[in-house]
Order: sequence, then C-alpha cells, then structure tokens
Amino acid sequence: MDRRSFLKNAGLATGAAAASTLAAPAIAQGVKQLKMVTSWPKNFPGLGTAAARYAKRIEDTSGGKYKVRVYAGGELVHPLKCLDAVQEGTADLYHSAEYYFQGKSKAFGFFAAVPFGFRPDEMDAWIHHGGGQQLWDELSAQFGVKPFPCSNTGSQMGGWFKKPMNSIEDFKGLKMRIPGLGGDVIKALGGTSVTLAGSEILPALQAGTIDATEWVGPWNDLAFGFYKIVKHYYYPGFHEPGTTLSTGISKKLWDGASDADKAMFQSCALAENNFGLAEFNANNAAALNTLVTKHGVKLEEFSDEIFAAAGNAAKDVIASAGATDATTKKVYDSYMSFRKNVVDWSRISDQAYMQKRSLVTF
Amino acid sequence: MDRRSFLKNAGLATGAAAASTLAAPAIAQGVKQLKMVTSWPKNFPGLGTAAARYAKRIEDTSGGKYKVRVYAGGELVHPLKCLDAVQEGTADLYHSAEYYFQGKSKAFGFFAAVPFGFRPDEMDAWIHHGGGQQLWDELSAQFGVKPFPCSNTGSQMGGWFKKPMNSIEDFKGLKMRIPGLGGDVIKALGGTSVTLAGSEILPALQAGTIDATEWVGPWNDLAFGFYKIVKHYYYPGFHEPGTTLSTGISKKLWDGASDADKAMFQSCALAENNFGLAEFNANNAAALNTLVTKHGVKLEEFSDEIFAAAGNAAKDVIASAGATDATTKKVYDSYMSFRKNVVDWSRISDQAYMQKRSLVTF
Repeated sequence: MDRRSFLKNAGLATGAAAASTLAAPAIAQGVKQLKMVTSWPKNFPGLGTAAARYAKRIEDTSGGKYKVRVYAGGELVHPLKCLDAVQEGTADLYHSAEYYFQGKSKAFGFFAAVPFGFRPDEMDAWIHHGGGQQLWDELSAQFGVKPFPCSNTGSQMGGWFKKPMNSIEDFKGLKMRIPGLGGDVIKALGGTSVTLAGSEILPALQAGTIDATEWVGPWNDLAFGFYKIVKHYYYPGFHEPGTTLSTGISKKLWDGASDADKAMFQSCALAENNFGLAEFNANNAAALNTLVTKHGVKLEEFSDEIFAAAGNAAKDVIASAGATDATTKKVYDSYMSFRKNVVDWSRISDQAYMQKRSLVTF
Repeated sequence: MDRRSFLKNAGLATGAAAASTLAAPAIAQGVKQLKMVTSWPKNFPGLGTAAARYAKRIEDTSGGKYKVRVYAGGELVHPLKCLDAVQEGTADLYHSAEYYFQGKSKAFGFFAAVPFGFRPDEMDAWIHHGGGQQLWDELSAQFGVKPFPCSNTGSQMGGWFKKPMNSIEDFKGLKMRIPGLGGDVIKALGGTSVTLAGSEILPALQAGTIDATEWVGPWNDLAFGFYKIVKHYYYPGFHEPGTTLSTGISKKLWDGASDADKAMFQSCALAENNFGLAEFNANNAAALNTLVTKHGVKLEEFSDEIFAAAGNAAKDVIASAGATDATTKKVYDSYMSFRKNVVDWSRISDQAYMQKRSLVTF
C-alpha cells in the first residue's frame, strides 16, 4: 500500500470540504460532535469504507451520544498528518495506518506492517495477548493518542512486473513503485524504490518511468486497471503480509471518557478490525477470479531463491529500523520474540492445513 | 473440540447454581437483567473466557443498562441445549458453537466448523461479506434466535496417537475420540469414532479404551496432560480448521431492542470474535513451545496420502450433510461456492507467504 497515494485525491477534495464547512449542522443538545480525520479518499474500497463504518458504529453503538464527522484525507489536514491533527486538537480521532507516522518514531511501523512479519491473526495475537497493545499505548501516549487496531488489508500481492522475474539478478536496476521498509528491501536487492500516488501509477507504467509496482491486492488492483498494461502478477508479497489499519483517539478525550464510553470505543474498533479484514478477503477472492478468468492475467510465483534473498535483506532492514532508539528497540524485541513462537504455531496449523487442503479438489 | 465433553463438569456445577438462585440479586431500576447460557465450564480457557468477556463487554459498552449473568454449561440448562433455552425463554442469549444444534438442522454445522472447510478469516469473509450472515439469520430465526460469530478456536491439531500413523491403513480399526463430521470421516477411513467428555479422555487412553484423541490445540491439550500418556502429536487437523464460537440473542429481545442496542450487541460480538481468536493463537503458540521443549512431545505430520484420503472422505460426508433438507442445501451451496474463490485467494496469499517465509530463519 502506498504512503503518499492519496495526496492527489486529497487535493481534489479540499474544495468540497471548504464549501461544506460553511453550513455547519446544528448540534443537538448533549450530543458530542467528533471530528475524525483519515488518510483515505471518502469511501475508498476497504480503507475509506472501514473508516466510515467505524464512525457509524460509534454513532450507533453510543445511541447517538457521539456524532462523528469523517474527513477524507486532505479535507481537514494532510492525509498523512492524522497523528499530528489529533495531537494538536484539530481532530478528535483518526483512521489511518501507523507506518505513516514513522517519521516520528520507527516504532510505529511495527503496528502496521513489517516485511516478513505477522499475518493479520498473528498481529492480533501479539496486540491483544502478547503485550503489543501496552507497548503501543506507551508509544502513542507520547503523542497524545490512545490507539486500537481497526481493520486490516490482509495479505498483499507481490506486485505487477513488466518482465518475468526469474532470478534475483532481475531486481538489479529495477524501478519499482514500493514505499517504506518494502522499498528498502528492493534497494538492498539492487533496485530503486519509487513513491507515487495511486493515480500516477498507471501513467508511469505506460511512460516506462517504472518497471513494476505493488499496490494492495486483487480487489484494489483490479479497480486501478494495472492488468491493462502489465500481465505478470506476482505472489506472494513479502513487504506487507497483512497491514493493520488503526484508530487513534485523542488521549484527552479518552482520559475524560466514562468507562462505558471507553468500552464503546474499544468494541467498535475491534468489531471493525474483524469486519474490515473480512471485506478485503471476500473482495480479493472475487477480484482474483475476475483478473484471471476475464482479463487473462497470469499469476506467477516468486521463486524460493528470490524470496530467501528478500528475506535476508528484510532481516537487516528491520533490525536496523529496530535499533533506531530505545522505544523502538523495546517494540522490536517484543515483536521478534513473539514472532518466533507464533511462526512455529502457524507453520503446523494454518500453513500446513492450507497446503494439504489443496491436495483435494472440492 | 468436543460436543459432550462438558456434561461431567455440568453435573458438578448444578448444585452451586441451585444454591445461588436462592439469593437473587436486587435489580437496580431500569437495568435489564439478561441470562446468558453457555456450553462451557466457567472461565474454561478460550471458551468460557470468551463468554465471560463478551458478557462484560455488553455490560460495559451499554453503560450498565444491561447486566448479564453468565451460566456455565449445565448450571441452568444442559450445556448443549443453549438454543432451546433461548427459544423457550429460559435464557436471553447464549454463547456456544452452532454444531451443537445439528440435531435441529444440519445447516447449523456450517456456521461452526466443516472438515476441509474455512479457516477463521475465510469464515469471517463468508459470514460478513459472502452472504453467510443472511443465511444464518434465516436459519436461526426459525428457532427464535439472532446469531453472531463471537470468537474462534483457530486451527485445531490433528490429535494424539499412541502409534505412528504412517499410512491410511493405520486408520483401520483405530478407536479415536473425535466427534461430529470429523468422526464421520474417521469412520469412512475404517476407524471408530468415540465421544467422551474431556475429563474422561486421559483415563480412556490409560485404560486402552481408545487409541487416539483430538481435543483442541496445544493450549487446551497441554492443560489436559495428554502428553503424559501419548507422544505422537499429529498436525495438521482436517476436522476443525477454525471453529467459530457464536452468540444467539433471543429474537424477541432483538426485535424489541433499539437500533443503539442492536449496534451494541453486534459490536460486542464482533469485538470478541476478533479478541478471542487472538487469545487462542497467542496461547497455542506459547503452549506448543512448552510441549516440545519441556515435555519432549514429538510433532508429526500427516502424510499427503492420509490427508488426500481424508479429504475425499470429507467431501462425501459434507455433501451428504448438505443434502439433508432445502435449508441446509442452500447453506451448503453458498458455503461451497464461496469456498472455491476464497481457497484460490488464500493459496496465493497467506498460504504462499507462510511457506516462503519459512525459508529464512529470523
């Protein structure tokens, strides 16, 4: 997924927002009006839809005590400045992904996605029952925020490549649109990582400015139409094996909230954490079928050689991020220690089951 | 997991329940007192803890409007009669697993676990975004209940075997404690399926009444101490690849509830659906490590030959269950149609990622 991809959409939305603020709705007596900033275009599939549902859950579950106005990325503040907006009191809460805040602390990245890291349910196990939430609370408190996980993109695809990627040599000189730690891995393999807004990717592929791109998964990739230009669709992705989306609630609001309201916020966030991942998986499954059967997209698998090389590069990239400062080190240590056991468990449960399930055609 | 395993505990609990009902608590003005029956012993790891947390979520999130008294299996009604209890008005809601109600309709089984069926996030995708919830609503409405998913055991282990299971021949004459559709598969492979309460399994293994047993996963299996008698611990399980636990709310209560209360019940159920699975995964990961490193348990993998034979048997078992009546057929068709696409998606995402992630030791 992209860290700057919504800037362009954001710009388009600013005019509409300015107009609508002229007619602020009358606020009913006793109703608390909350401003929720997001990193996404309004109702953007999977991302914006999760934010909108989460806001509605808060309104409904609180019985109308809270009204939540959802701002698209760029409407009230820059799409990637959600944490600042809540810290500064411009907004009351956000829906975003924590790796957008890595400029403040590398530790934030571990609560979104890590190359060769946790899948969604492994992440939830760490957050809810492996000490992750406490570490996250400590980190975010420094920025005036109480965080919760609030949806997940699920496993992301490896990306779209103009030429077949037969060996690790093919990464040398490759210009790929891939941001963040995943981009650092591509660099370590001899390629160049480029950051482009979502709407800029297709033209860049056409113009030959880039040789490859990753985005999210079949559902979002189909909508962008990459299959029209590029036919080599690689799996699996190593860079974002399940990106946690998140909400951050103003700590001032949180600390002053009743126990009932705290429980309400938590229930709504965790409900969407469950519901939103399901939306990605259901739509990815359907879109994959469309891409392959209707658009003739060829699915290709990264070789073990490529994956092993990417893994070794990722190990260094993550360790280096983890060593940035004391807070990040603590988060990194907890993440990696939990990873050890949970990967062993996944290997003999979900992983082994899925492998063997494929032996029989149903 | 077991369908009758809590009967013994249930018996023990009845006395305490009878005593405590003598001193009914004073009910505060305006507070709605709900009775929640469960299929589990009080605070039984993963099962009872999920039920207790869900009840507390309802109390907290509703700001004390609802008080929920949780009854252990057998305390108010028979552990497996939760649906009847809510239908008859003895209880207001339940926390259970739908396959306990297969006596009423085989369709219920598809909302808990199916051999060779969905993993937890595949199940959620079907329920939330693949038409599953609507079909479940229609089914449960016939029994006066509004259902939601409310935690998940995650992938279950293949089981504990006295002798190595080297070939499909080894299932002939095998006496295994394994209930439900999984048991039907064992029968199709030439074995015998036995149903025993959890507390009866260890003595039965010692006495030689059974040759093998499945239970849940490392966390619960470690607590029962099977490793003291049996050392061959097989993976992966095919019979329950992620068992959905569920809540059923009295339809009378549901239909009369405000939109806010409906949203509250849904948020609480889905929050626990996320939180409870994470509890199983985190604890299974830690317990697996303990079993292997501390108790010298040998992990063994079912061969492809065994898994393929079990899969072919399962296909017939499920198809036969699915053909029972018109309602079940509708659920079966939806499940199997969704399964086709989602398995293809899982294969190139989570499955491929986990396989290749193992190439690098972190």
